[in-house]
Amino acid sequence: MNIIKNTMGSHRLMNRINTLKILNLLRENISISRIELSRMTKLDAKTITNIVRVLFKQDLIEEKGFNESSGGRPSEKLSIKTSSNFCIGVDLGATHVTCAMVDMRGSVLYKDECEVSLNESKESVIKKIIFLIEKCSRNTKKKYIRGIGMGLPGLFDRKKGVSVHAANLPKWKNVPVRNILSNKFDLPVYFEDCSRVMALGEMWYGKCKNIKDFIFLDIGYGIGCGIVNNSELQSGATNSIGEIGHIKVELNGKPCGCGSSGCLETVSSGMAIAREYKRRSGLNGLSRLTAKDVLTRAYSGDATAKRIVSESGKYLGLAISHIINILNPDIVVVGGKLSKSGSVLLKPMKDAVEKYSYSGSLKGLKIVNSELGDDAGVLGASALVLRNIFELEV
Amino acid sequence: MNIIKNTMGSHRLMNRINTLKILNLLRENISISRIELSRMTKLDAKTITNIVRVLFKQDLIEEKGFNESSGGRPSEKLSIKTSSNFCIGVDLGATHVTCAMVDMRGSVLYKDECEVSLNESKESVIKKIIFLIEKCSRNTKKKYIRGIGMGLPGLFDRKKGVSVHAANLPKWKNVPVRNILSNKFDLPVYFEDCSRVMALGEMWYGKCKNIKDFIFLDIGYGIGCGIVNNSELQSGATNSIGEIGHIKVELNGKPCGCGSSGCLETVSSGMAIAREYKRRSGLNGLSRLTAKDVLTRAYSGDATAKRIVSESGKYLGLAISHIINILNPDIVVVGGKLSKSGSVLLKPMKDAVEKYSYSGSLKGLKIVNSELGDDAGVLGASALVLRNIFELEV
Repeated sequence: MNIIKNTMGSHRLMNRINTLKILNLLRENISISRIELSRMTKLDAKTITNIVRVLFKQDLIEEKGFNESSGGRPSEKLSIKTSSNFCIGVDLGATHVTCAMVDMRGSVLYKDECEVSLNESKESVIKKIIFLIEKCSRNTKKKYIRGIGMGLPGLFDRKKGVSVHAANLPKWKNVPVRNILSNKFDLPVYFEDCSRVMALGEMWYGKCKNIKDFIFLDIGYGIGCGIVNNSELQSGATNSIGEIGHIKVELNGKPCGCGSSGCLETVSSGMAIAREYKRRSGLNGLSRLTAKDVLTRAYSGDATAKRIVSESGKYLGLAISHIINILNPDIVVVGGKLSKSGSVLLKPMKDAVEKYSYSGSLKGLKIVNSELGDDAGVLGASALVLRNIFELEV
Repeated sequence: MNIIKNTMGSHRLMNRINTLKILNLLRENISISRIELSRMTKLDAKTITNIVRVLFKQDLIEEKGFNESSGGRPSEKLSIKTSSNFCIGVDLGATHVTCAMVDMRGSVLYKDECEVSLNESKESVIKKIIFLIEKCSRNTKKKYIRGIGMGLPGLFDRKKGVSVHAANLPKWKNVPVRNILSNKFDLPVYFEDCSRVMALGEMWYGKCKNIKDFIFLDIGYGIGCGIVNNSELQSGATNSIGEIGHIKVELNGKPCGCGSSGCLETVSSGMAIAREYKRRSGLNGLSRLTAKDVLTRAYSGDATAKRIVSESGKYLGLAISHIINILNPDIVVVGGKLSKSGSVLLKPMKDAVEKYSYSGSLKGLKIVNSELGDDAGVLGASALVLRNIFELEV
């Protein structure tokens, strides 16, 4: 029931709605004059002037040149101020932590990353995060940074700001991320699941800017996804939405890290591809062989590698068909470290999607690769900060 | 991005939000005085008086007794006026069309139904719908009826108001339902998918009144579902959300009416249960044997019936586990004609849900039977009318 539940109609709300409308118009366009804003919003000149004055005060917008004059005084163009509004995006994955300084239009100004390993202590991971944030923010005035957004693997407690656990980083447990980072940097800290922030990245800066219903599929060491329904990033009843890595694709399948068996992650994740290749080809000693290496071998004609990767693709496609039949998205965006693996994985995946999806939901459906690539995570994480500036909290 | 996209902040919007707040408070409570309304909404007395005056004019509310006096003049209590606000709910299924007159609190005042058969012409089905609406509305003054809501099987064109097709009613094709009914009855006509209206029924009148994320599973002749995410009934990109009947549960399974094979409907629907029992027991002549008969036989110890129903339950549970892993709902409500079939179907279903769902999403998850029973469809359909009175259209 979509009535605005937690608020009443008030002048404050009215003003907030109109301010956001203007702010978003300025974000979606390069620059707009006051007169154009008035025409676009149907707000009177005085209201526009008042709102614009406040946005100037908040240092969120700036003047940027003039409209060509059509007789009288040329009108000044307004623009989002990118030179003094930055967000820090942090993306913690199973193998890397990445950090970037991002401006308000989603340009990455600086980015760096560190590897993390399976057995790394939480203290060591936190140290790396702090080191990267310091490195990224070295050249930016503190007062220009609007906040830190972070993508977290596994389970987290949104209220307390605690990262509870991450299946692929076993020592990363009960880490009070929000307190640690906000104490250290004295900035607002926001977070979200690491696959969901990638979906958010697509929504703010990628292929899904005006798409109401889409899925971001994150194929990497593990498999996750972000779900956007009706233009809202969903989180589910207990913050566990999108656990597609644990969809059963084989009823009598291999045991999974989650305690169950036959999960998608046991056949289609980077972890599974590498493990299965090592097992079948007797290369168990090669502990550093990764899924990417297996893909390379598949491309150079290694039959075992090809078979394993193709099987992985098929099951990925089956799981995607379940999502399509259940959710009827406009677009499935394929991202994550393995999304650039090309046809050897993606062709069998797409074939399986065709074969197993309900035809009515396939009509018009697009399966596309993420254009944001490795930046999807940090961009989406930085958008967590922007949401608090550009969206209505009701 | 949740900014109110299609509207600007205005006095009109402010007033609409406050009016809806009051209207919904009166719907959620039996009666409230003006003073209490003012306290609950923090709106001043004058605003309350103005809004209440308009609601009286619209005949939506009435006075209902007095508060006990604590000294001064006792205050009048206000209430939703149920005696002059009615909605007609129509539920078109594969085997029946049902129609009800429903008051604003979800009481069914009159209900009736007709059977429809697989080969019935669309003209005949439309005749039955009109007959039922006339019968249901016989004792209600026309001016008290707020509209007609309808649950439709299969595909429909929301904009044009046309029911495009229904797999289980092959002759029901391209029916301009909205025009036919609004011309005939001169009332606003709303519609929605027949499983989704059942979810809406649960949301307005059933077990899911304050539940943000839930699934309504409609097990009957076919299998459908309604999905509520973040308190919104979802419809998907091409209005095909919730096609769980066509989730692949057997990769090399039986052919399905949708043109594919191995779909959930080929093993777990009422249609499939009846067909499979007839096949295995050599009773193909018994064309009128239904899934309910098979269930009765299962309860009386018929081993073949038991095996078939148990298998159906298992695959239902597998499909539900996919939904749980993808969507992480609070509650799965099981409804539809077969939902009252008891343990012989539901026990294996629940066992499979336990076995195949991600443990993090099972925590706190409830699987419950719909309390609305056979009324879920007509109640949900009637709520389609109420949405236009009680919700903000943005």
